[in-house]
Amino acid sequence: MGKFEYSLGLNEFKSKELRLWQALIGEFIGNLILNFFACGACTQPEDGTFKALAFGLGVFMAITIVGHLSGGHVNPAVTLAMLIAGRISVLRAVFYIVFQCLGAIAGTAAVKILLDPLYHNGLGHTSLAHNISELQGLGIEFFLGLVLVLTVFGACDANKPDSRYTAPLAIGMAVTLGHLGTIQYTGASMNPARTVGTAFATNNWNAHWVYWVGPVLGGVTAALLYTQVLEAKTPPKSN
Amino acid sequence: MGKFEYSLGLNEFKSKELRLWQALIGEFIGNLILNFFACGACTQPEDGTFKALAFGLGVFMAITIVGHLSGGHVNPAVTLAMLIAGRISVLRAVFYIVFQCLGAIAGTAAVKILLDPLYHNGLGHTSLAHNISELQGLGIEFFLGLVLVLTVFGACDANKPDSRYTAPLAIGMAVTLGHLGTIQYTGASMNPARTVGTAFATNNWNAHWVYWVGPVLGGVTAALLYTQVLEAKTPPKSN
Amino acid sequence: MGKFEYSLGLNEFKSKELRLWQALIGEFIGNLILNFFACGACTQPEDGTFKALAFGLGVFMAITIVGHLSGGHVNPAVTLAMLIAGRISVLRAVFYIVFQCLGAIAGTAAVKILLDPLYHNGLGHTSLAHNISELQGLGIEFFLGLVLVLTVFGACDANKPDSRYTAPLAIGMAVTLGHLGTIQYTGASMNPARTVGTAFATNNWNAHWVYWVGPVLGGVTAALLYTQVLEAKTPPKSN
Amino acid sequence: MGKFEYSLGLNEFKSKELRLWQALIGEFIGNLILNFFACGACTQPEDGTFKALAFGLGVFMAITIVGHLSGGHVNPAVTLAMLIAGRISVLRAVFYIVFQCLGAIAGTAAVKILLDPLYHNGLGHTSLAHNISELQGLGIEFFLGLVLVLTVFGACDANKPDSRYTAPLAIGMAVTLGHLGTIQYTGASMNPARTVGTAFATNNWNAHWVYWVGPVLGGVTAALLYTQVLEAKTPPKSN
Ligand SMILES: [Ca+2]
Ligand SMILES: [Ca+2]
Ligand SMILES: [Ca+2]
Ligand SMILES: [Ca+2]
Repeated sequence: MGKFEYSLGLNEFKSKELRLWQALIGEFIGNLILNFFACGACTQPEDGTFKALAFGLGVFMAITIVGHLSGGHVNPAVTLAMLIAGRISVLRAVFYIVFQCLGAIAGTAAVKILLDPLYHNGLGHTSLAHNISELQGLGIEFFLGLVLVLTVFGACDANKPDSRYTAPLAIGMAVTLGHLGTIQYTGASMNPARTVGTAFATNNWNAHWVYWVGPVLGGVTAALLYTQVLEAKTPPKSN
Repeated sequence: MGKFEYSLGLNEFKSKELRLWQALIGEFIGNLILNFFACGACTQPEDGTFKALAFGLGVFMAITIVGHLSGGHVNPAVTLAMLIAGRISVLRAVFYIVFQCLGAIAGTAAVKILLDPLYHNGLGHTSLAHNISELQGLGIEFFLGLVLVLTVFGACDANKPDSRYTAPLAIGMAVTLGHLGTIQYTGASMNPARTVGTAFATNNWNAHWVYWVGPVLGGVTAALLYTQVLEAKTPPKSN
Repeated sequence: MGKFEYSLGLNEFKSKELRLWQALIGEFIGNLILNFFACGACTQPEDGTFKALAFGLGVFMAITIVGHLSGGHVNPAVTLAMLIAGRISVLRAVFYIVFQCLGAIAGTAAVKILLDPLYHNGLGHTSLAHNISELQGLGIEFFLGLVLVLTVFGACDANKPDSRYTAPLAIGMAVTLGHLGTIQYTGASMNPARTVGTAFATNNWNAHWVYWVGPVLGGVTAALLYTQVLEAKTPPKSN
Repeated sequence: MGKFEYSLGLNEFKSKELRLWQALIGEFIGNLILNFFACGACTQPEDGTFKALAFGLGVFMAITIVGHLSGGHVNPAVTLAMLIAGRISVLRAVFYIVFQCLGAIAGTAAVKILLDPLYHNGLGHTSLAHNISELQGLGIEFFLGLVLVLTVFGACDANKPDSRYTAPLAIGMAVTLGHLGTIQYTGASMNPARTVGTAFATNNWNAHWVYWVGPVLGGVTAALLYTQVLEAKTPPKSN
C-alpha cells in the first residue's frame, strides 16, 4: 500500500509538502522566464540563430535557477518522461504540468502587455509551415522530444559524474540544436507548455495536439530507450 | 554596536582595507571591459546575436578576471540585490556602485576616443523604442534584472556546488539571454552602470530613471525570491 | 594467440557481447541525431553560423547521450584514429563504422520524409565548391579530420583530468570550428558517415572518396601525432 | 649563476630538452590551427559573429590540444606577458614567439594553397579601417591584449581552482569578445603571430608595428596589473 501511495505521490503532501510547493513555484518561474525571453526574441526581426539561442539559454537559465528544487523540467514532455522512468509520481507530474503551463502563459502574457501591438509579430507562437502536414509535424516534434529527453538522461545520469557540471548547459544546447534543425517547419516547440503559453496569448489552437503528442511521444520513447538500453550501469572508476 | 558598524560596513576600512580597494579596482576594471567591448560591438553594422554575445561574454570575462576580489557584480542591480540579501554592507555597496559607474564611463569614453565619429553610431546607448512607454520599459528592465539576479543566486548558491565551475559562464549567458529577448525594445540594459557609461558619453539622459529603477527592482525582487523561497537549504549528498 | 584475438576484437563477442551491442546502438543513435538535426539546419535559408552551430551541437549532444557506451565517436575518422592508436580492435572499428553510416542514412532519410520536397534544398549534402579541385578538397578535409581528432585526444587525455568535464563541449566546438573555417568550400564534412547519409538520400556520390580519404588521413595523422609527440605523459600534481 | 642561467632559460636545453621541443611543436600546431580555420572563416561571405566565433574557437581548440605542453599561449603577447610575470624564461619566450609565427605562416599558407584565388578575399589579413589612425589602432589593440591576458591570468590563477575546468573555453571566449568589440576597426588581431601569418601570405606589412606593439603593451600591462593588484593571494577554503 505504501508502494501504491508513493507511485500516486499522495505522500508528497505529507512530510515533503513544503518541497512540493517550492518545486511548483520553481517550475512556474522557469517556464515564465523561458516564454518571456524566448517569445521576446521571436518578436524581433532577427534570424534563426538569434531565436535558437534564446530558447536554449532560456532553458539553461531556468535549470540554473530552479533545477535544485524541481529538477528543472520546465517541459511536460520531460515531466512525463520522468514519470515513465519512475523518477516522479503521477500526482507530482500532474502538478508540474499545470504550473509549467501557467508559467508559460504568464511569460507570454507579460511580453504581450509590455510590447506595443506593433511589435507582437505573432508573439513567438509555433505553427506548421505550408506543406508540412500534421503527421509530418508530429514526426518532427517527436524527434525534438527525443533528443531533448535523451540529453536530459545522458547529462544527469548519476553513474556519469563527469557530466554533472555542464548538465544545465548541455540541456539548454539540446534545445538550441532542436531549433536550429527544425525551426522553420514546426517552430521547434519541443515543449507543450511553451506552445500553450503562446496559443493562449494569440488564441490560436490550430494543430495544437501536434505540440503535445509529438514531444511527449518522443520524450517517453527517450525515457524507455535510455533506461532500458543506454543507461550507464555502474559508476566509472576514477579514470 | 559592532553589529551596527558591520551593517554599515565601517569596518571595511580597518582590517580589510586593502581588500576593499582591490574590490573597487576590480569592479572598475570589470565595467570598463564590459562597456569598452560591448559598446564597440554596438557601433558596428551587425545583428542582434553579435551584440547579445558581446554583452554576455563581457560579463563572463569580467567575472573571470575580478570575481575573486569583488564577487564580480559589475552591476548596481546585482550589488543592491546582494545588499538586500545581507551579503554586503551598505558602505561597500555604495562604493561598488560608484566604481562600477566610473568604470563604465571610462569604457565608453575609450571607445569614443578611439573611433572616428563616423563610427560612433550612438555608442551603444540604450533607449526606448518608439511606442514603448516608460512604464513598459520599466517592466521590461524589471524582468531583465530579475533573470540576471536569479541566475547569480542560482549559479553561486553555496549549497549547489555543482554549479560553481560554470557560474561565470551561466551569468554571462543570462546577460546574453536578456539581450536576445528585449534588445530592440529597451536596448536590454539590465545594468544601470552600463547605461550611465553611454549616457555620459552621448549626454543623453532621456528616460534614464527607467534604467535604474527597472533592473534594481527586478534584482531586489530576485534576491528576496531566491533567499526566501528558492534557496537550496542543505548541501546535496554525493549523488 | 590471445593477443591476436584481442587485436582483431574477436573476444568482443564473448564476455563483452552486450556492451558491444549497446555501443553499436549508441553510435547508430548518435549519427542519426547528428544527421537529422544538422541536415535539417542545412535545408533552411539561414547563414553559416546557424549551420556550424547545428553540426557542433549535434556532436555535443551525441557524446552526451552515448559517450559512455561507445566513446561517442559518431565518425569513422575518429574510429579509425582510435584503431591506429590501439584503443579499439579491428572488428569493433568495422562494426562502429557500419552502424555510424546506417545511423546517418536513417537521420537524413527522416528529414527527407518529414519535409515536403519544397524544403529539401539539397538535404545538407556536402560538395566541392566551383574551382575547388578534388585534391584541394582532400587537403581541406584532411585539416578538418586533423583538428577534430587532435581535440578528441586533447580533451580525453587521461593524464589531463581538468579537461574531462568539458570534453563533449570541446569536441562539439571543434566541429563548429571546422564548419566556420571551410563550410563554403567542401561543406566541412569532417565525417565520412555524415556524407554517406546525405549521399544516400540524394543519390549523389560525386567526389565521394574525398570525404572518406581526407578526414581519415587527417584523423590518423592526428592520432599518431598526439600519441607519439603531444600526449601528457604523467598526470599533473594537484596544481 | 644558477639563478641567472635560469632566467635566461639556458637550462631548458639540458634536463628539460625534450619538453621544450614538445612545447615548440605545440605552439606551432596551435597557431597553425588558429590561422588555418580563422583565416578560412574570414575568406567567406559571412558576418562578424561567424568570424568572431572562428577565432575564439580556434584558441579554445589550440589550448585543448597543446595547453599541457606549452601552456597554450599561441600568441606572442601572452608569451611576453608570461615573461614579465616571471613564469617563463627569456630564451623560452623567444623560441615560443618564433614557432608561433611559423605556425601562423603555415596556417595561412595552407588556406592560400587550398583555395582558388577567387576565394582569397584578403585571406583574413588585419588592417586599419578608414579614418582609424595608427595611434587609434594602437589603443584598440592595447585593449585587446589587455582583456586577453587578464582573462588568461584570471582563468589560470592557481589560487582559483574553480576556474580551471573552463579555462580554455574562457580564454577562447575572450578572443571572441575582442572580435565582437573591434573587428571592423583593426580586424581585432589581439595576436602578433596571427597577423604575421596573414601579412606574410598577402605581403602586406602596412601598419604592422601596431599589431605587435598594441597587443604586447596591453598584455604586459595586464600581467603587471594582475600579479601586482588582482591576484588571488590564498587558495579559497572549500566553500
Ligand atoms: Ca506536404
Ligand atoms: Ca505603446
Ligand atoms: Ca581551382
Ligand atoms: Ca580618424
